Amino acid sequence: MSKKIILDCDPGHDDAVAILLALGNPEIDLLGVTTVGGNQSLEKVTYNARAVLRKAGADDVPVYAGCDRPLIREQEVAASIHGETGLDGVELPEPTRPLEQEHAVNWIIDTIMSNEPQTITLVPTGPLTNIAMAARLEPRIVDRVKEVVLMGGGYHVGNWSAVAEFNIKVDPDAAHIVFNEPWPLTMVGLDLTHQALCTPAAQKQVESVGTPLATFVSGLMDYFRKSYQANQDFVDPPVHDPCTVAYLIDPTVMTTRRCPLDVEIRGELTLGMTVADLRGPEPSEKECHTQVAVKLDHQKFWDLITDAIRRLG
Amino acid sequence: MSKKIILDCDPGHDDAVAILLALGNPEIDLLGVTTVGGNQSLEKVTYNARAVLRKAGADDVPVYAGCDRPLIREQEVAASIHGETGLDGVELPEPTRPLEQEHAVNWIIDTIMSNEPQTITLVPTGPLTNIAMAARLEPRIVDRVKEVVLMGGGYHVGNWSAVAEFNIKVDPDAAHIVFNEPWPLTMVGLDLTHQALCTPAAQKQVESVGTPLATFVSGLMDYFRKSYQANQDFVDPPVHDPCTVAYLIDPTVMTTRRCPLDVEIRGELTLGMTVADLRGPEPSEKECHTQVAVKLDHQKFWDLITDAIRRLG
Amino acid sequence: MSKKIILDCDPGHDDAVAILLALGNPEIDLLGVTTVGGNQSLEKVTYNARAVLRKAGADDVPVYAGCDRPLIREQEVAASIHGETGLDGVELPEPTRPLEQEHAVNWIIDTIMSNEPQTITLVPTGPLTNIAMAARLEPRIVDRVKEVVLMGGGYHVGNWSAVAEFNIKVDPDAAHIVFNEPWPLTMVGLDLTHQALCTPAAQKQVESVGTPLATFVSGLMDYFRKSYQANQDFVDPPVHDPCTVAYLIDPTVMTTRRCPLDVEIRGELTLGMTVADLRGPEPSEKECHTQVAVKLDHQKFWDLITDAIRRLG
Amino acid sequence: MSKKIILDCDPGHDDAVAILLALGNPEIDLLGVTTVGGNQSLEKVTYNARAVLRKAGADDVPVYAGCDRPLIREQEVAASIHGETGLDGVELPEPTRPLEQEHAVNWIIDTIMSNEPQTITLVPTGPLTNIAMAARLEPRIVDRVKEVVLMGGGYHVGNWSAVAEFNIKVDPDAAHIVFNEPWPLTMVGLDLTHQALCTPAAQKQVESVGTPLATFVSGLMDYFRKSYQANQDFVDPPVHDPCTVAYLIDPTVMTTRRCPLDVEIRGELTLGMTVADLRGPEPSEKECHTQVAVKLDHQKFWDLITDAIRRLG
Repeated sequence: MSKKIILDCDPGHDDAVAILLALGNPEIDLLGVTTVGGNQSLEKVTYNARAVLRKAGADDVPVYAGCDRPLIREQEVAASIHGETGLDGVELPEPTRPLEQEHAVNWIIDTIMSNEPQTITLVPTGPLTNIAMAARLEPRIVDRVKEVVLMGGGYHVGNWSAVAEFNIKVDPDAAHIVFNEPWPLTMVGLDLTHQALCTPAAQKQVESVGTPLATFVSGLMDYFRKSYQANQDFVDPPVHDPCTVAYLIDPTVMTTRRCPLDVEIRGELTLGMTVADLRGPEPSEKECHTQVAVKLDHQKFWDLITDAIRRLG
Repeated sequence: MSKKIILDCDPGHDDAVAILLALGNPEIDLLGVTTVGGNQSLEKVTYNARAVLRKAGADDVPVYAGCDRPLIREQEVAASIHGETGLDGVELPEPTRPLEQEHAVNWIIDTIMSNEPQTITLVPTGPLTNIAMAARLEPRIVDRVKEVVLMGGGYHVGNWSAVAEFNIKVDPDAAHIVFNEPWPLTMVGLDLTHQALCTPAAQKQVESVGTPLATFVSGLMDYFRKSYQANQDFVDPPVHDPCTVAYLIDPTVMTTRRCPLDVEIRGELTLGMTVADLRGPEPSEKECHTQVAVKLDHQKFWDLITDAIRRLG
Repeated sequence: MSKKIILDCDPGHDDAVAILLALGNPEIDLLGVTTVGGNQSLEKVTYNARAVLRKAGADDVPVYAGCDRPLIREQEVAASIHGETGLDGVELPEPTRPLEQEHAVNWIIDTIMSNEPQTITLVPTGPLTNIAMAARLEPRIVDRVKEVVLMGGGYHVGNWSAVAEFNIKVDPDAAHIVFNEPWPLTMVGLDLTHQALCTPAAQKQVESVGTPLATFVSGLMDYFRKSYQANQDFVDPPVHDPCTVAYLIDPTVMTTRRCPLDVEIRGELTLGMTVADLRGPEPSEKECHTQVAVKLDHQKFWDLITDAIRRLG
Repeated sequence: MSKKIILDCDPGHDDAVAILLALGNPEIDLLGVTTVGGNQSLEKVTYNARAVLRKAGADDVPVYAGCDRPLIREQEVAASIHGETGLDGVELPEPTRPLEQEHAVNWIIDTIMSNEPQTITLVPTGPLTNIAMAARLEPRIVDRVKEVVLMGGGYHVGNWSAVAEFNIKVDPDAAHIVFNEPWPLTMVGLDLTHQALCTPAAQKQVESVGTPLATFVSGLMDYFRKSYQANQDFVDPPVHDPCTVAYLIDPTVMTTRRCPLDVEIRGELTLGMTVADLRGPEPSEKECHTQVAVKLDHQKFWDLITDAIRRLG
């Protein structure tokens, strides 16, 4: 039986690949895409989400726009990485399916409350504003959600500061809420996603599918590579967001370690750091509802991506 | 023409008087009462709001339950002031009208968006969680609201710490959001409400109405007096919340001063302090969207209360 | 018997008047002047202290230079108030007595430890860096000092932010140390010193002494008036620092109120605020080692200043 | 030519080994030992320092007591690791040489200022209170010191919280001062010192020296092992402090990496964390005055320890 997920994202080059992986793998039932201001403004990333779905021919998947700014802090976007449109470097088709009228936060709540308990997985790959708002607006969702598998943070690695990652740093207060609710939570952070590099070999494997969609993804990777070379001292770009979906499809794509996790919301140098307590022996699932992703099986990951693109035709 | 208000409260003895003043004065059109966890748990204050409306025979006024806890910080209630029920000391009738199903935050948004711009006034007398959530969920309400007149804070006076007031201190992050949105905002803080004392003469004036409702209010005041004597070094209790409604009925009931206002969300000694910049000359309304209440006309205030109770019969 | 004081200052126009008041009043035995980076750089204020002493013919009073910057925070000076030299607007004589070699902090410690217990009063009128350093370097001074009477802070008034005063705000960490040591401490803050205005009448009274020193003080006041008019929306300048010395000469020059005091070192809007807990009844001296100055006898204050200038000849 | 060092410590089992290594290796000229409240109270660690020197027959080395508490925060000691005396588990000889009268901070300043520039190395192995105080009291020492090689912090490892190490966490403000002064600074943190385990083989190697001093060190290790097993989930105890001295004797005992370093003094979860910016390529010495220790040569380290104990006879 496939897993019902809500993908809460801010496309974004790697978010786009996450959408395609969710669409193209039969293990995943993508109920809808919700958007949040993050890599770019809410308006831009919502358009991008709809355009990527159109590109993949997935007009059955609804898109709901969510929060346009962080809870407390001033907004900050990642134009240095994703460009002015949020998906610079590729040509996007005009979306056909209209944007849904309901607010993402209310739709997330309604979906969780109207489905069987423990059947819906939340997959946030942007700032956690929508998820935090939903948990505050309807606290009962916390017990009903199956799990949260998110891209964000890092226990030893930062990118938006020495020790903080973009998604968490731009709305640390929302992340603090989400990490402290007692749902099962897997943090797929930079420690893991910096292994998900789009090497030339990986990109060639994607291109080998030979479809317009494969060319589209390769174009995303070309731009992403340039951004990461120019701004983050990388050779190959780390394709963060689809790691979450890959983990849901096949948990053996990565190893994880259970540990207490929290988000620093007061620090000056450490604002938005995801603080993992890795001291002592690993706690049990019962003792600890949070875990971090540690080591990626790079080939298995790119096989999943390639396979999904192939299936989408 | 009467003023359409939404009373967002956490009854609470003085919230109860605010409800009665709003109901009993023809200048005010009370569209609905929304509740928020504050003086007591959401469940208790919601029951109290419904029971007070029932007591006043106001079954036409809907009640919507809102957020049950602060945005970020752990919840803290004011049982030392309002007792275990939140309205200790009086007997409450069983509410007849059922609680509305819609969430307070969504109803606030819907009401503002479906009424003409600049016609709805928000009157929060509890923690600002609902109002902050509404502003984040639907940012367009900020321009559509006529004004926000709130009880909370204090520019020179604290009660829940040396420099912070209860409503702001228990959810400083929500207050920070509300004070920083550009709507016209009047802070009726402790500087003003500590003048709104229920002196023996004021209480006698209320009792002189001679109705069961007057007796009910006098009972509220008896309990409130004991709480304030036991916990806050007062002789007569300050009846905070109805000051907001009184100001909307008749602005001459108090003087105000325009000044920049913000909420401290990082301090250790000053967490939840409403920081007013009173240096230099008073800015114009155009320069500054916030003002503080300064001096109360005590007799006029109690005349309004008494009059409302009389009208409610 | 006169009171032995150490004046720890950063002249500064009002510091200069404090020096003259201490020199010219027989109740005060000025053991030495110590300097601290504050209104201007350590080098400048140290020169100014020596020059003012020279101007007053007080070559018997030693000057010790102290800390050149705050404990933790970056340095900030008050050039907008005191000008580039720290004493702009008057001509200073070349100091004759050389600067002492010992560090102010070590001299403060040595002086306190070598005098009888409870005989030395510390009078800081600048940032509290030296005093904090002394208390940490030799904790035994805390019990040996008679009292600390300082200019700084404000319980309801700020000047360097909405709620913080310059001396405290520029080194809040040092102030936090000093306010939390258990010595008797009187805070003469802006609440009091904004009453110590150099009105035209007060300035005329000073000028009526008719000496070169009186002319010098009047020149200081002319510049100070212009600064306060240009930068702080004052008509007449508040002559802060000598209020401390005046209080030591004659406590009836002001009223005080005992209350717990602390310094906010974490806040964003409130950094460096002196937080006074004025709730409830006034505590006894035994319960509370700190007090604040409340109300000034303006005429008595200026009489003391005038008298000191006259005595100095 | 041997290196002149000042060892600023709080013995402490591993501090004791650091003292012995400094005494017993000809590359090191131990000018004096200064003490600071840390692992235990100032009084206890000062006694311990003197007793360890006595044990090693080093009555020529003076001991100066320094600060007894952190700059701002309340004091916290590590009794869970080092016991009530700070050196539990061994018998100490009565010190013969009296404690020096001068304060450690003043002696550090005097020593640096009276020696040739760039000849004195500071080796702090406790909280950085003394060093911070010295830098504030006499800023000129910063340019005159050769380098600072300290035990404290960790770029990926904590022990006193998830991400902070004891020495830094108990006086984060002092550490912030020390890390931000522009002297060359090597942080030998937990990342390195958790490799300096006293394995059974290492302990046997020490014991093989066969002297009473070797037995003494082995006794220290027995207690240290039990503490670390009981409190920190270690099998063998990490012998932190002598790693600093070992590095000065022979830099090849460890690898280092240059990177910007700072100390978090505001965070809630991260208070006292040493924040290393490891992003991008390693900066040059000219670009960056700080470096961290990365990888230890375990055998070389224990050979140095064993050799020093042997030489001390």
